[in-house]
Amino acid sequence: MGFDLHRLEPGYPLIIGGINIPHERGCEAHSDGDVLLHCVVDALLGALGLPDIGQIFPDSDPKWKGAPSSVFIKEAVRLMHEAGYDIGNLDATLILQRPKLSPHKEVIRDNLCQLLGADPSVINLKAKTHEKVDSLGENRSIAAHTVVLLMKK
Amino acid sequence: MGFDLHRLEPGYPLIIGGINIPHERGCEAHSDGDVLLHCVVDALLGALGLPDIGQIFPDSDPKWKGAPSSVFIKEAVRLMHEAGYDIGNLDATLILQRPKLSPHKEVIRDNLCQLLGADPSVINLKAKTHEKVDSLGENRSIAAHTVVLLMKK
Amino acid sequence: MGFDLHRLEPGYPLIIGGINIPHERGCEAHSDGDVLLHCVVDALLGALGLPDIGQIFPDSDPKWKGAPSSVFIKEAVRLMHEAGYDIGNLDATLILQRPKLSPHKEVIRDNLCQLLGADPSVINLKAKTHEKVDSLGENRSIAAHTVVLLMKK
Ligand SMILES: [Zn+2]
Ligand SMILES: [Zn+2]
Ligand SMILES: [Zn+2]
Repeated sequence: MGFDLHRLEPGYPLIIGGINIPHERGCEAHSDGDVLLHCVVDALLGALGLPDIGQIFPDSDPKWKGAPSSVFIKEAVRLMHEAGYDIGNLDATLILQRPKLSPHKEVIRDNLCQLLGADPSVINLKAKTHEKVDSLGENRSIAAHTVVLLMKK
Repeated sequence: MGFDLHRLEPGYPLIIGGINIPHERGCEAHSDGDVLLHCVVDALLGALGLPDIGQIFPDSDPKWKGAPSSVFIKEAVRLMHEAGYDIGNLDATLILQRPKLSPHKEVIRDNLCQLLGADPSVINLKAKTHEKVDSLGENRSIAAHTVVLLMKK
Repeated sequence: MGFDLHRLEPGYPLIIGGINIPHERGCEAHSDGDVLLHCVVDALLGALGLPDIGQIFPDSDPKWKGAPSSVFIKEAVRLMHEAGYDIGNLDATLILQRPKLSPHKEVIRDNLCQLLGADPSVINLKAKTHEKVDSLGENRSIAAHTVVLLMKK
């Protein structure tokens, strides 16, 4: 499983699943702040029993510094194949109040499938609002939950 | 997996798993605001790789408008069987500060089993408080998390 | 799956996974307030379709009153073996703003493996901050999510 949350602040780009989403706020982060890709990476690493995203891709290592999150996904997929697993099923839920994600959902999902090298039939993406309550509901943060089931190749 | 959250407001009924729970607050929603059934539907649809509850049952379609959430569950179960799957295991966690859910837990679980057409041994329900913090803990919202594992028939 | 959350208050010990973590706040609870062990117990009981931690280990029963959470884990593991299952994979995510968990992560995971009688290769632990927002981000609470997959022995 994976969980991630980022603060939304004015003046930053909002990148979800590798896609730039037009919005007046975005994720203030050293990286590209991609809450969906971070969460998916952690779900994959967790299922493999490997250290988490912060340990595998430390900011202090010039190899990963400033890398877009797509690089982390590809490395997690490589580690998964190396361990002898494929994705059986992956289901991710984004929680954000705004902007409406439905116009962008398919392009995000397509990009996620491509990054994972996985068939769209086993990759699912949902978006929910937080009904205007708490930081998620007040458009001050964005979160993602992911559950993945790996199958032995 | 599924996640859902609704705001609790005075003057609305509180319906959880199809059961009317006596409480001075309930879910302000166009539908019956059943956080548990919505969450279970999304978990089933997510595991099947189908679009989410808002896309499959749009409010704009007269077929679904005003339907109780039990209708959505039954349709999700039909889609699951059509795809050749049965529920291997379903585990749901409700998060709400009040009212105490223990007196209602078994009747909610029984109704959920019946709606899903599933044996009670594979359907589980937990309730947790949110320790008085944030909107969940201040009785201003109610949330549910569900994880489901489907088995090929 | 399991979820748990505790409030952090000054003057209490902070015990995570059975390990005492130096911090100026801890969990105000009748029990030892071990958010990780509680969450793991609920994930195991949920996967087995058994009643939840509050029902199996009621405070009102002198057998469990004041017991450290390690006792609950061991009993959950006994129930799992009795039902004919072993842990296929367990992944837990702790959410807390402070203290930094990385110096304690391995000792917590080792203790968790020992309590579960499970090989470290199938037990995973992650820690995330809540980016300074909401009670989790303001160091006023700590939460844990766990997903477990059981395998028939
Ligand atoms: Zn992140
Ligand atoms: Zn809902
Ligand atoms: Zn607890």
